[in-house]
Amino acid sequence: MAHWVQRIGVEAILSGMVETLDEDFRRWSEFDKTPRVASHTPFGVIELMPTSDLDTYSFKYVNGHPSNPARGFQTVTAFGMLADVHNGYPRFIAEMTLLTALRTAATSALVTRELAPAGASTMALVGAGSQSEFQALGIRATLGIEDLRVFDTDPAAVEKLQRNLEPLGFRITVAKSVGEAVANSDIITTCIADKAHTIALPNDCVGRGVHINGVGGDCPGKTELDPELVRRSNVFVEYPEQTKIEGEIQLQPEDFPTTEIWKVLVGDAPGRTSDDEITLFDSVGFAIADFSALRYVEAATRDPEYHEDIDLIAEPDDPKDLFSLIGAGVPA
Amino acid sequence: MAHWVQRIGVEAILSGMVETLDEDFRRWSEFDKTPRVASHTPFGVIELMPTSDLDTYSFKYVNGHPSNPARGFQTVTAFGMLADVHNGYPRFIAEMTLLTALRTAATSALVTRELAPAGASTMALVGAGSQSEFQALGIRATLGIEDLRVFDTDPAAVEKLQRNLEPLGFRITVAKSVGEAVANSDIITTCIADKAHTIALPNDCVGRGVHINGVGGDCPGKTELDPELVRRSNVFVEYPEQTKIEGEIQLQPEDFPTTEIWKVLVGDAPGRTSDDEITLFDSVGFAIADFSALRYVEAATRDPEYHEDIDLIAEPDDPKDLFSLIGAGVPA
Repeated sequence: MAHWVQRIGVEAILSGMVETLDEDFRRWSEFDKTPRVASHTPFGVIELMPTSDLDTYSFKYVNGHPSNPARGFQTVTAFGMLADVHNGYPRFIAEMTLLTALRTAATSALVTRELAPAGASTMALVGAGSQSEFQALGIRATLGIEDLRVFDTDPAAVEKLQRNLEPLGFRITVAKSVGEAVANSDIITTCIADKAHTIALPNDCVGRGVHINGVGGDCPGKTELDPELVRRSNVFVEYPEQTKIEGEIQLQPEDFPTTEIWKVLVGDAPGRTSDDEITLFDSVGFAIADFSALRYVEAATRDPEYHEDIDLIAEPDDPKDLFSLIGAGVPA
Repeated sequence: MAHWVQRIGVEAILSGMVETLDEDFRRWSEFDKTPRVASHTPFGVIELMPTSDLDTYSFKYVNGHPSNPARGFQTVTAFGMLADVHNGYPRFIAEMTLLTALRTAATSALVTRELAPAGASTMALVGAGSQSEFQALGIRATLGIEDLRVFDTDPAAVEKLQRNLEPLGFRITVAKSVGEAVANSDIITTCIADKAHTIALPNDCVGRGVHINGVGGDCPGKTELDPELVRRSNVFVEYPEQTKIEGEIQLQPEDFPTTEIWKVLVGDAPGRTSDDEITLFDSVGFAIADFSALRYVEAATRDPEYHEDIDLIAEPDDPKDLFSLIGAGVPA
């Protein structure tokens, strides 16, 4: 995965992935939307996220272990698989830690392209972790934006983001406060790591007419936007049933109004309707985005340079004679 | 998998697996028993079967496509994975089509060792498919039984079973009817493929004092024993919640009495209590058996001859700098 991304380039991949996500979100209603299956332990959670469009089945394995970085491990690792629905045979397995980072950024880019105010030219990043870097590349790939205003409470994170993005041509303004970062920004992307009900973006910092990607709040007990700001916004979601549990709107009443992104893409619901409104993408990450990402990577890595064949399926010559695979060589 | 089984020998593996299953069934209450997640389509079903003992997490991917053999594919393919619960990292992936066949036979062997009448020396096989061959090897590995009486409506299947098992030293009597096969057999193992409420083993064929492994009836709408025979038997199950839906007892009332195998193994419930009774293992296959099988294979294939390393997890030097994996080489 890393080799392929290095060779092709992050932005080229994000551009392609945005179009694949667009295709799949537009046929949202065709998908089998099974709830994710979680195994909780004292150390963290391990989840399986399946979905299917009746032609291809996918699932992602993903863990979340908050104490991992202190022990030298990543908080989240993931891999995923595609299978043929017509015969049930697995056909493609891929790393998905990097791929999840890419698809999360590509999803924000797709939604931002749809909802951002006309002529948007500056993005604020609240939080300077890895995902913020991918978000910046995704927005540049779709909207050409290169002016970033960055705030993080950890100066080392900001330095790392500058080190990673400035060589790529971004113009980065380091802000001393979140207010300074978001002032005069057309797009605001928040992504912080704390698993708590944090207010990383206070309501009174945010003026009218912006688009916000709320990326970090993505599980129960983890939000990062001022609930008052959420109430001021028109909120767009992937899948309301999941976002109500995992997104910023977990702090809002059950009947809080939201619009499904796929309905905006196909023209069944309005997106941005005025220059003044605040649009908020309450991003949590849904299995269909993983499906799209895997499907894109499968098609893009057919060159033997990028994939290897693994022999994972027993295939006897006679499908009814499984024993034939191992009978030879067994001593009598 | 096939290479390892050929090298080590099916019976040696079944013997070892029986002991691992025994260990894990005895600590049944420690496991997180998540329901399987099924994705149904017009062509078949794809399932994910997770479980965890709070130290190791496992899941199995398995499909079931009844129309596959007619098109040159296997009805069922499977693979599975182990992960460390403490950090959520995947650590072992294995083929599980063969391995499921092995663990199913090993589970029957474990249960039969516990429940068969004293001095059992003959086993009837009703159905001569691949699983019956594995069942025979499992019973020989645990109880030393080499006398088989086989019935199948398809002579070609019986010939294939003879071809596979006679060179291994089994003495096989081909029966012209199910009644002829089970007469004077101490153990009866049924395993037929039809997805229907079939009666492959009529009640009036079965005398007293036998042990029955009902292996084929394992999903809704698929049973193979006479319901009257089930009512005459003391029924032992893996996990009642699942067996009520998938096993022979799906045709019995909701409150039909069963005994969990693990309770017999640890001495919390009686097994066979008289020479005269019929004991029936209503086998459906549960995730903990897959966990045991994967755990056994992982430990037994540490030699580089038997496994290969695959690079499936992104591991940046700094767990907080995922971008570092792909930043190098991206053109500015």
